Amino acid sequence: MTKLIAALRDGLGEGGVLTGDDAAPWSRDWTGQYRWTPLCVVRPRSTAEVSEVLRLCHAAGQPVVPVSGNTGLSGGTSGAGAVMLSMGRMNRIREVRAEARLAVVEAGVILSSLHDAAEAQGLMFPLTFGARGSAMVGGFLGTNAGGSNVLRYGNTRDLVLGVEVVLADGRVMNLMSELHKDNSGLNLRHLVIGAEGTLGVITAAVLKLVPKPAAYATAMVAVPSLDAALGLLNDLQRATGGAVEAFEYMPRTYLDAYRARFPDTRPPFDTDYETTVLVEVGATAPRDAAPDAEGRVPVAVHLEQVLAERLEAGAVLDAIVAQNDGQRAEMWARREAAGEVCLTRQPMVNNDVAVPLDKVSVFLDRAGARLARLDPGAVPVVVAHLGDGNVHYAVWPTCDDAALADAIMEAVEDEVLALGGSFSAEHGIGLTKRPSMARRKDRVALEAMRAVKAALDPKGILNPGKVFPG
Amino acid sequence: MTKLIAALRDGLGEGGVLTGDDAAPWSRDWTGQYRWTPLCVVRPRSTAEVSEVLRLCHAAGQPVVPVSGNTGLSGGTSGAGAVMLSMGRMNRIREVRAEARLAVVEAGVILSSLHDAAEAQGLMFPLTFGARGSAMVGGFLGTNAGGSNVLRYGNTRDLVLGVEVVLADGRVMNLMSELHKDNSGLNLRHLVIGAEGTLGVITAAVLKLVPKPAAYATAMVAVPSLDAALGLLNDLQRATGGAVEAFEYMPRTYLDAYRARFPDTRPPFDTDYETTVLVEVGATAPRDAAPDAEGRVPVAVHLEQVLAERLEAGAVLDAIVAQNDGQRAEMWARREAAGEVCLTRQPMVNNDVAVPLDKVSVFLDRAGARLARLDPGAVPVVVAHLGDGNVHYAVWPTCDDAALADAIMEAVEDEVLALGGSFSAEHGIGLTKRPSMARRKDRVALEAMRAVKAALDPKGILNPGKVFPG
Repeated sequence: MTKLIAALRDGLGEGGVLTGDDAAPWSRDWTGQYRWTPLCVVRPRSTAEVSEVLRLCHAAGQPVVPVSGNTGLSGGTSGAGAVMLSMGRMNRIREVRAEARLAVVEAGVILSSLHDAAEAQGLMFPLTFGARGSAMVGGFLGTNAGGSNVLRYGNTRDLVLGVEVVLADGRVMNLMSELHKDNSGLNLRHLVIGAEGTLGVITAAVLKLVPKPAAYATAMVAVPSLDAALGLLNDLQRATGGAVEAFEYMPRTYLDAYRARFPDTRPPFDTDYETTVLVEVGATAPRDAAPDAEGRVPVAVHLEQVLAERLEAGAVLDAIVAQNDGQRAEMWARREAAGEVCLTRQPMVNNDVAVPLDKVSVFLDRAGARLARLDPGAVPVVVAHLGDGNVHYAVWPTCDDAALADAIMEAVEDEVLALGGSFSAEHGIGLTKRPSMARRKDRVALEAMRAVKAALDPKGILNPGKVFPG
Repeated sequence: MTKLIAALRDGLGEGGVLTGDDAAPWSRDWTGQYRWTPLCVVRPRSTAEVSEVLRLCHAAGQPVVPVSGNTGLSGGTSGAGAVMLSMGRMNRIREVRAEARLAVVEAGVILSSLHDAAEAQGLMFPLTFGARGSAMVGGFLGTNAGGSNVLRYGNTRDLVLGVEVVLADGRVMNLMSELHKDNSGLNLRHLVIGAEGTLGVITAAVLKLVPKPAAYATAMVAVPSLDAALGLLNDLQRATGGAVEAFEYMPRTYLDAYRARFPDTRPPFDTDYETTVLVEVGATAPRDAAPDAEGRVPVAVHLEQVLAERLEAGAVLDAIVAQNDGQRAEMWARREAAGEVCLTRQPMVNNDVAVPLDKVSVFLDRAGARLARLDPGAVPVVVAHLGDGNVHYAVWPTCDDAALADAIMEAVEDEVLALGGSFSAEHGIGLTKRPSMARRKDRVALEAMRAVKAALDPKGILNPGKVFPG
């Protein structure tokens, strides 16, 4: 392997290959749940260098694990003995073209940098989530990341017009379309998005931008039940013509855990309600953003009207509308700390699932009952992108027992699948969900996946041991 | 082969297999440009029967061509010696679930039937195009069809949550998700959508429905240039918060050809303008659809305001806003007859391409100049989904000469690709665009496509001779 490392150094220059202690940042995931010792870390600065790395590794049959921001939640970047292919130095925003509403970016661009670049031109890249200050293009395309705005703007794949991909043997596939209609053969773009680096390495992308809402109306709302929450969502969508940007569920157990982790913060309400949601509506038409004589923007008036009507009807218990950016930021900070909050206790069993919108409530009841039987002292720490039916069902079990952790995963899956849901919503499969893939994925789909994998990476060097069950 | 036909009869019953004259409707495409003699036509009534057909054909190495409404424009259903697998009897709308905003349908459901079923519940399946009275689910998913509302609602693939697919050897792959977030391995749904039946046969799908606009504002607008048309589009999108449903370009040459084909119709304006667009805005929020004291709905007021401002500025020459459903229908009839209008003269060279929005004008100039050099008497008959940059560049050449036809195709492609466009926008590849695929598709992408095809259909029985260059 020293021969391969020497060849990589030849190709990438001295700073392009890291070993030993220098490789430490690429030897664990951010949750600390996975740790490994890679062969080395390579840091290409161009697509040509990525191609060279893969050509060399392919010839040597050497496993390669692509990694960008390393903020994944499923162990998708673990790479014992692997060449860690870090995209961090390919971090150029090549273009932001406001008229065409697109950005051309490299795989190492950090999500929040892209946010800033779009905003500087009055536009928005709508994908967002807590890790946006570290997560990079390569990772969020590789995992088809979701986040808080999927309700309005779709998943990552819905925001991608084109990609550049280096295949396992180093061939560069140029699919950098900027077009909204492009039916020219099999759709390989959607195949590599969400493939978690198992089919090729995404080096660049053409991303859609959208008009930035001219005003937001944001509120914390306490409701008597999840059904009442869904009624609120539907009323808001009707009133605003589908302008709800986010609809995030936080139960009392989560808010308690948040305050325990961040004791200096304030609770959203004076009363401890069981069921609260963070609601955000965005104004994209001028008529929704132009303040009236009292300085209120119509989008906020709509939100307040719907809340008032439902308060009157007993379908809302309490509501606080953010009066300024600071209050809005406080509401979002509470939600976006979910990753950190869950990690305050170890062990933690993480499970990211989706069910039909109207089944979230019954799912939580059933999963809670199963959990109580498996481990009566276990604490579920739940948050949900309720508008997508996407539940992050984290659990703090009472003891560190792999068999118990797996039993909890499996029980949660049972309830998800019985309700027509998916065992994996937005975090991807990585290592964490491989047992679930083996148990739950349609047999024929799994066979077809393996056939496609073997066709595009016959030596199996790309992110081996991930996504596909053993 | 009589043995195979007998086995198919055993599996599907007497009326399930057609031969000889009974197969005539499946022996040509609707344009009349392609004619062939199939081995037989099979008409399964269930997924199990489709599976049985493919199992038998796979064992025999027998080519199979899936066909549903047979309204394609690229010869994708031609099948000399093939088993024509007609989906027409799998025509059940299994469910329309208004609360979940989805429909579960079989591949033989006609698009307009789906429109009616959705509308009965106050919803809409937004995909639409001229052939909606014949086109079926299997075909529009297989080709990832576009149409007039892509601007607002996306292409077919953006409207599909789940699919059921029978693979080449008869295995049934169940990807019938109803979820908006479902990251559970490689995305095989997007791989089969738009694959034109070369990877598997789509037998059923879960489709998204959207709220039906409560009111429309529709207008024919004459503008001084395509740049002025784009300015109008941008102003309308800003004013309405992105509520433009359609933005269709019809030049004077097209309107003349339309009146020649349908002499009883009226011209849109008293003056013959060179550049006209059909504009439609849909109201999805109650505030945009509630009539004011004069009976005008806000969405129409927005449209009229934008038109008046631009008329004042000289950026609109003339405009007629539809005052009732009849006038709206007349405007749409003019656009939707494009297929028939183009076919009034033979030979006709059809070319469906896409360029960036702001490049349509320069593309038309350049393509026109190339055409004038190749065949000075040729007449281009152009319509365009201008909001998507999608141009249907049909040409009536002066003589029936295959080499001339190909030279015209190639010249148009040259100009498209020089502007960053695609040689195939929404009609798919089929037979017509195979030479273009050979000339224009990224080499590595073509290799990857072939590898995926060989992995999923190793005997090459599914729609052979289509999509992939020889």
